Amino acid sequence: MNASGALRRIGERRPLVHHLTNYVTVNLVANATLATGALPVMANAVEEVEEMAATASALVINTGTLDGDWVEAMILAGKEANRRGIPVVLDPVGAGATRFRTETPERLLSEIDFTAVCGNAGEVSALAGLAAEVRGVESIGGDAREAVQKAAGRLGTTVAATGPVDYVCDGERLLAVKNGHALMGRIVGSGCASTAVVGCLAAVGGGDAGTVAGALAYFGLAGEVAAGGAGGPGTFEPRLLDALSALAADPDGLDGRLVVEEVPLA
Amino acid sequence: MNASGALRRIGERRPLVHHLTNYVTVNLVANATLATGALPVMANAVEEVEEMAATASALVINTGTLDGDWVEAMILAGKEANRRGIPVVLDPVGAGATRFRTETPERLLSEIDFTAVCGNAGEVSALAGLAAEVRGVESIGGDAREAVQKAAGRLGTTVAATGPVDYVCDGERLLAVKNGHALMGRIVGSGCASTAVVGCLAAVGGGDAGTVAGALAYFGLAGEVAAGGAGGPGTFEPRLLDALSALAADPDGLDGRLVVEEVPLA
Amino acid sequence: MNASGALRRIGERRPLVHHLTNYVTVNLVANATLATGALPVMANAVEEVEEMAATASALVINTGTLDGDWVEAMILAGKEANRRGIPVVLDPVGAGATRFRTETPERLLSEIDFTAVCGNAGEVSALAGLAAEVRGVESIGGDAREAVQKAAGRLGTTVAATGPVDYVCDGERLLAVKNGHALMGRIVGSGCASTAVVGCLAAVGGGDAGTVAGALAYFGLAGEVAAGGAGGPGTFEPRLLDALSALAADPDGLDGRLVVEEVPLA
Repeated sequence: MNASGALRRIGERRPLVHHLTNYVTVNLVANATLATGALPVMANAVEEVEEMAATASALVINTGTLDGDWVEAMILAGKEANRRGIPVVLDPVGAGATRFRTETPERLLSEIDFTAVCGNAGEVSALAGLAAEVRGVESIGGDAREAVQKAAGRLGTTVAATGPVDYVCDGERLLAVKNGHALMGRIVGSGCASTAVVGCLAAVGGGDAGTVAGALAYFGLAGEVAAGGAGGPGTFEPRLLDALSALAADPDGLDGRLVVEEVPLA
Repeated sequence: MNASGALRRIGERRPLVHHLTNYVTVNLVANATLATGALPVMANAVEEVEEMAATASALVINTGTLDGDWVEAMILAGKEANRRGIPVVLDPVGAGATRFRTETPERLLSEIDFTAVCGNAGEVSALAGLAAEVRGVESIGGDAREAVQKAAGRLGTTVAATGPVDYVCDGERLLAVKNGHALMGRIVGSGCASTAVVGCLAAVGGGDAGTVAGALAYFGLAGEVAAGGAGGPGTFEPRLLDALSALAADPDGLDGRLVVEEVPLA
Repeated sequence: MNASGALRRIGERRPLVHHLTNYVTVNLVANATLATGALPVMANAVEEVEEMAATASALVINTGTLDGDWVEAMILAGKEANRRGIPVVLDPVGAGATRFRTETPERLLSEIDFTAVCGNAGEVSALAGLAAEVRGVESIGGDAREAVQKAAGRLGTTVAATGPVDYVCDGERLLAVKNGHALMGRIVGSGCASTAVVGCLAAVGGGDAGTVAGALAYFGLAGEVAAGGAGGPGTFEPRLLDALSALAADPDGLDGRLVVEEVPLA
């Protein structure tokens, strides 16, 4: 589904998007979800994750911080979403940075059917079994274009890698998203927020490459809009939420502004 | 106590307000407390919650995210506050959304004497035993006016339900608060922050309907001020803190700007 | 190392700074780290903290919220950093406020060699064994100048106490940092963020009094820059990140703007 159609449907349906996410960027993730027009809910207690996931229209699992029962809660929520056919999106934050951060998304991928996996180039490279320099959770390198194709093949799902150009591959198509702005890489959580937006669009449009690329293009365009007048990364972040909200409120206004290009599969 | 009197007293005493709150909106809650003139402290470890609560002038319990020992810590802190006569305010975030989120505030209400309970219309309806559509934690419906009266009767305490018009009932009076702005519903955590402000005013003025309504009116007026010049929900949020801070610094300036109306009890 | 030299080196090396910090101010801490030019990573799971610390150039431990396995994780990470000679910085948030918050940093100090300890005057007084009024975690008093000297002697490391004037003592020198702005005390987490910046500079310059004071002066200057045009504490915070980022991008521009004065040791 194209981005403007998906945003229109989100505005009509107000889908509930359930996040199991890290405590670092959780507020931005929730606000980005709300700005996109969906209803965010953050719930991670094992006592309730299945029930919450069952009432949601999409589930977004983000491994940015993990502790105690979190992985168990992610698996409970993911399996319940799978049983009900609810889209599940994974952001494997920090995959490749430590053994625990690599093995946890691999375990999640083995137990849950994901609709889409979205990370930075280094994280997606790690899941694709490619070598990549990963230090912590910020993107510092990796060949996004190669990584998404390898990972899509290996994982059997749609994979997106964000960066100066985002690449999305669902095994059949490879798309390049050219919207975005350098300030997006200078705030903590722009990757988490873009995955949240993918979850919002997946809630109404599923996880094919076109829908995922449309979500990233909409997010990138919001970054371009927000950068105008921003004094740096600090003032950019609230402006990004303003832009997500304004663009979502006028889906027709996206026409001709989203730059998504078909790229030949390697 | 009226809002300007309470804010003046907060500025003089700098009361400590102890929060056990969720990790989604905790930063906004802490900053709203500080902007109101009180000293926020977030502490949830079972090792310290009683000692911290004992040194506080108010305790605010918010069930937005729950995990592990949190409920136990809430009960320990609440009972200690009760023993010392310290006001305790509850925000039952998500009551009605899952069984766990409904039963937890009910358990807290059975073990702790709350000075006030503040939620959105759906949450308060759930605690009042009324039917209401609840999806996640964002307010999407419910009759606030009916809900606060039922809940105040059932729970035997002051109950507030926030929405386009906020309603507050302490069993004797029903008040309608008409300050506010639509942008407040478009940021994550405005409800949590308004409950935090109720906690600040309760710290110096107690929990009668007038004090609670005054807190919500002050918060709503800050929303009106903040909306002027905001470019959307993202830039609205920092402006809301600016406005809370500016209004708290000049309590006399509130005169005639807070719109609180007495409503006949049903 | 002076601040401009350290910032230049940070920009060249992009050091990874590993934080074990509280959930209240974690987003600001991460963004302040990124704005300073370093790469932040937040990781607290016992399964990974040693491996993450081993890949970092500095470790920052902040006791603002503590629960479950956190203290154990802090000790694991700190010991690993010590084994590898990686600088470790402590922010003893709330020391003096409860027994748990006083004993935890004392335990950390007994098990880990810290490169520097940074807190507010009350917290540092508590660690120095001096009497101080502490209510919650906001600074409300204490003699910073006396406290850092006593604490540096008692703890055998560099100690900084932030306030209207920051004082830094490494046992050999006592420095006063006169940069800063009153709005810094009106946002939650400016202390946590300044300690994060100390961690960034320690990653490339170590923990002598000059480097720590330079970090605090750079942070204070950013506060001065940010205050210009801020409408209150809410809009000040994003502007603070803008200023940290702009100053870090032009280290030569700091010359003559950082006010650090040598003070005779008592």
